[in-house]
Amino acid sequence: MKDLHRTLAQLVDIPSVTGNEGRLCTAVASRLLETWSIEAATRVGNSLVVGRSTGRPMISLYGHIDTVPVQGNATARVDGDRMYGLGTTDMKAGVAVMIHLLESQPVIEGPYDVIGVFYDKEEGPSADNGLEEVLDRVPWLTESQLAIVLEPTDLRLELGCNGMMNADVVFTGQAAHSARPWLGENAVTKAGAWLDQIHHRQPQPVVVDGLEFREVYSVTRATGGIANNVIPAEFVINLNHRFPPVYGLDEAEQRLRQVAADADRVTIRDRAAGGTVPVGNPHVDRLGAALGAERAAKQGWTDVARLTTRGVAAVNYGPGDPSLAHRPDESVALANVDIAYAGLADFLTRT
Amino acid sequence: MKDLHRTLAQLVDIPSVTGNEGRLCTAVASRLLETWSIEAATRVGNSLVVGRSTGRPMISLYGHIDTVPVQGNATARVDGDRMYGLGTTDMKAGVAVMIHLLESQPVIEGPYDVIGVFYDKEEGPSADNGLEEVLDRVPWLTESQLAIVLEPTDLRLELGCNGMMNADVVFTGQAAHSARPWLGENAVTKAGAWLDQIHHRQPQPVVVDGLEFREVYSVTRATGGIANNVIPAEFVINLNHRFPPVYGLDEAEQRLRQVAADADRVTIRDRAAGGTVPVGNPHVDRLGAALGAERAAKQGWTDVARLTTRGVAAVNYGPGDPSLAHRPDESVALANVDIAYAGLADFLTRT
Repeated sequence: MKDLHRTLAQLVDIPSVTGNEGRLCTAVASRLLETWSIEAATRVGNSLVVGRSTGRPMISLYGHIDTVPVQGNATARVDGDRMYGLGTTDMKAGVAVMIHLLESQPVIEGPYDVIGVFYDKEEGPSADNGLEEVLDRVPWLTESQLAIVLEPTDLRLELGCNGMMNADVVFTGQAAHSARPWLGENAVTKAGAWLDQIHHRQPQPVVVDGLEFREVYSVTRATGGIANNVIPAEFVINLNHRFPPVYGLDEAEQRLRQVAADADRVTIRDRAAGGTVPVGNPHVDRLGAALGAERAAKQGWTDVARLTTRGVAAVNYGPGDPSLAHRPDESVALANVDIAYAGLADFLTRT
Repeated sequence: MKDLHRTLAQLVDIPSVTGNEGRLCTAVASRLLETWSIEAATRVGNSLVVGRSTGRPMISLYGHIDTVPVQGNATARVDGDRMYGLGTTDMKAGVAVMIHLLESQPVIEGPYDVIGVFYDKEEGPSADNGLEEVLDRVPWLTESQLAIVLEPTDLRLELGCNGMMNADVVFTGQAAHSARPWLGENAVTKAGAWLDQIHHRQPQPVVVDGLEFREVYSVTRATGGIANNVIPAEFVINLNHRFPPVYGLDEAEQRLRQVAADADRVTIRDRAAGGTVPVGNPHVDRLGAALGAERAAKQGWTDVARLTTRGVAAVNYGPGDPSLAHRPDESVALANVDIAYAGLADFLTRT
């Protein structure tokens, strides 16, 4: 077995379900301290930053080390040209690539200060995400000219990411006995015409730097009524809005409020900014060429948005296959791991 | 205070919230046993039947003796021309009238076998209603030519009653990530056009024996979705159907299924037949004349339906005001109690 694949199998075999990343964080630290001095490593909780700022242009690599819970797939197993097991695709394949890049003498001696950021609690609630504290505690990370997040992208270069917002869209009426509904006003059926409008609304493409993001509005939850014989006086609908990163939070909220204008009340529940496409960044075109990767918009939300908010240009690129993440039969093509390593090594050793 | 009003105050002052009717049942029995022999009284749990079948045409009077829970209104209080307190309107005023009719010598010696049925647990779940057991245990009650249920009708003669049905009307779709809703199908918004149809559906009048019932369909509960970022795969709507008594249960179900034909699945949850208008019943016109009461359809469900199902012709007539039932400021006009007593005494003493 190739060293890189063996590293991946070792990472998979050390359990690191969200909240229990200590052992894996220590294992990664121990291994990289064979190459790096103790001064070049900073541990923050169960997160780890490896690398030094020496004045060369800085490029940072990001990988979360936690996984979703075990589904009978706790240990690594190779079958044909794929490795199976929890975290293979999301995202220990990316973490293995990061470790090997940080151990590569050509990369270490190359034109860039390459920094590895291994962080915890990405798969849990966004508010607990370990990256937030790492960025607070290691502020010089924002000096990076480019951050590469090695989340699964199936070797595509996924740029930016959508923003996300949830709102309670509330229709109100007046309660009455259901034997005499004409004495009240039905809040649920009152929403019918609006729901039908939303049903027929098409995703709206917005092109940013040649990449197509889609703005979409989805009703994801709906609850109304208190009893089988009472006309409901209130119908509460969750409207989930995914918007291209060119819309700031206030603009996105304004757009949502316009879409929900037929409702009686709209309350924003949460808002998360999108991740900006790093237009004009000197490294992005070079990265695309080095990787030979297809460019695409990230139609979803990743920590690229968190980095963007801190002023760090960031992209998504990784060997895992996002369609296999969080599944019991999660796996990664071993060829993809090799391709990601080779492409990034090439990128990090040339100007 | 008039005797009839004093009786009502005594009934109100004995608590009888659903499930705790024992003391009141015993009080009514003790009082009526001063007039009736022990052979003429049958106790069934905390329900009581008073009267005898002697071969005269039988007319029975029905009243539930329980109340909804106390809301700071446990004792009777007269203010001006009204009596306030829990159960005054629903329906101890009717029960007081029943007691006085059963104590009236002209009524006892009149042309009819007059039977009083005092029953428990009407205000709780329909399946626990005490009347069901009374009708099982005292089968000769079905010999009545007319049953008068003294529920509050504000002195209107309310004939028949609507039937009632509840169904789960289910729209199904396909789950997907809400960042990419076009990969799934939204079960909630799919229902929009149907909800809008229901919203604009008008009550359908159906005239039975000159009385207008209204067939209505109401969405009373609606629940869909499992998380803010998942396209809902299922949307479950409760459809409440109130139908005129001329539609039997099967016909009413067929009509409901037609109205819900756009849904992916319809499951009937409960069905209760309506109460038939006693067309051609010799006593009903006479009763209307004796009472001088406005005739109306009962747009709701009462135990008239339960009696109808047992083959007993039944009507609703009582002194209480239905719009004040179950309210903390529940009250009854004392004049109404007198009018109900006088009208029924007149009706029960003539042919």
